[in-house]
Amino acid sequence: MPAASTENLLPDGVFAASLTPLSEDMSVDYQALAAHCRWLLEQGADGAALLGTTGEANSFGLRERIGLIEGVLEHGIPSHRLLVGTGCCAFPDTVALTRFAVESGAGGILMLPPFYYKPVSDEGLYRYFSLVVDQVKDSRLRIYLYHFPKLTGVPFSAALTERLALAFPDIVVGMKDSGGEWAHMKEVCERLPGFRLFAGTERYLADVLNIGGVGCISATANATVALAAEVYRRWRAGEDVSAAQAQLSAIRQAFEAGGFVPVLKQLFARWQQKPEWLQMRPPMAPLPESLIDGIAAEVERLGLRIAP
Amino acid sequence: MPAASTENLLPDGVFAASLTPLSEDMSVDYQALAAHCRWLLEQGADGAALLGTTGEANSFGLRERIGLIEGVLEHGIPSHRLLVGTGCCAFPDTVALTRFAVESGAGGILMLPPFYYKPVSDEGLYRYFSLVVDQVKDSRLRIYLYHFPKLTGVPFSAALTERLALAFPDIVVGMKDSGGEWAHMKEVCERLPGFRLFAGTERYLADVLNIGGVGCISATANATVALAAEVYRRWRAGEDVSAAQAQLSAIRQAFEAGGFVPVLKQLFARWQQKPEWLQMRPPMAPLPESLIDGIAAEVERLGLRIAP
Repeated sequence: MPAASTENLLPDGVFAASLTPLSEDMSVDYQALAAHCRWLLEQGADGAALLGTTGEANSFGLRERIGLIEGVLEHGIPSHRLLVGTGCCAFPDTVALTRFAVESGAGGILMLPPFYYKPVSDEGLYRYFSLVVDQVKDSRLRIYLYHFPKLTGVPFSAALTERLALAFPDIVVGMKDSGGEWAHMKEVCERLPGFRLFAGTERYLADVLNIGGVGCISATANATVALAAEVYRRWRAGEDVSAAQAQLSAIRQAFEAGGFVPVLKQLFARWQQKPEWLQMRPPMAPLPESLIDGIAAEVERLGLRIAP
Repeated sequence: MPAASTENLLPDGVFAASLTPLSEDMSVDYQALAAHCRWLLEQGADGAALLGTTGEANSFGLRERIGLIEGVLEHGIPSHRLLVGTGCCAFPDTVALTRFAVESGAGGILMLPPFYYKPVSDEGLYRYFSLVVDQVKDSRLRIYLYHFPKLTGVPFSAALTERLALAFPDIVVGMKDSGGEWAHMKEVCERLPGFRLFAGTERYLADVLNIGGVGCISATANATVALAAEVYRRWRAGEDVSAAQAQLSAIRQAFEAGGFVPVLKQLFARWQQKPEWLQMRPPMAPLPESLIDGIAAEVERLGLRIAP
């Protein structure tokens, strides 16, 4: 549907929350990152999410994050295929990074809540997001609320999500729901028809599509991308995806034996025979190779193949 | 003991984790902040902790935090009376801010762990702190680990604390323990004689002094400072402080009816008749005045008096 795809500029489908390849001095290797994004697109991803949790975003300072966006674009990745994480603890940082990403043509903004203070009231969070929208002041701004209470300690309640979506209907357009709770995804979709919900895991890909969601943005989609993209395309074509989704969910589950950043970086180092993947910023630290052995064997048994 | 106080440059006693007064545009009001620090010292505080949790540190960007340190020093607060919070999520930010604080002559550094990713291994945290010490590269660096698991989700286990203190004996010299768990404070003091533990609440002031700790760094000491300082001085003089400590603990508890930042800012706005105290950065939001009424009445009943 070429006509639809050029008219509808809002992202949907399968997005990998891209890993961030690093150089030996732990700076971002822009060329390797762009190469990985290109590889994800070739595998069938609808796009990549930069500066998400899996991209170690919060281990980079504001200037480094801006540099990362610039670096990827300079290496030829089309900006509209990128979702960019911009939510920091301090609103001036969030405003600066968001403005840069919007001006760079990003396909959408993933925005964490300010995640240090807790508990905070929905009123306080509403004020925060209102301030950010007001200060970014750009009609091209499209925010996907990034719900990840296990890491942030600051949930987007369904009530707050609704309040923000109604207050800023053309701006707060969706959510990446990494809460892992089906009831939350369902409530958000039911309260807000047309709200663009991405599951934070490909395990719920078909499920969210069935209730009006638009896709998934996932850490493990760095590896499962081809199969996840197949599920998405077949679902769009009206085919039965239950077997493919079951395989996808099983592979996803096998990755959950360790923290995704070290697990995926250590696996890509093997799969692509590139030891430079092993660089990660503390507090991330490599996991025992025996654990990685087990995951590698299990995902292969389940049918995952990554060509070198 | 003037001789001791000039020889011993390491901080001890009662530190208020200073509130950060803001202007109407939510920038830091340096003059008001310096005035508040001066007032705390006049009330008997041994010093002030800047850019802690109560100071809304994580609601300010890196440049704003550097500006805050500069601004306070320019307004005449002696640098050695200041502990400065410098722990960010990204190590380059932590390094830059720590270096600036050390070069400014701060009496010590309060360092949060990187607090987005969780769970993380003690090995990953050890690598993080090693990297920061290595990159700051300043023999004047004195770190107090800032243990506040309710907000960070990233505890300093006693084992990790010991590993860091033994690896960097002249640098990782102490802890602000805001965990609220007596067992943790006790274990750290027992494992590490000479380690400078500050309780994160004045409720444990006498208790930590009795097991080798050195004082407290507390949000509510913004208000309880005079009484807390009295407990500390009388304890140092070998007097019985049980009645004064009991009063101090009761007042502390009365403040716990709401989040400390809005509670204290709303109370200071009343006590000092300065509505500008009401400015706070989102996600902080003012609490209902009826709640503040109750706290104000209760702390007054318990004997707290703040002169306008």
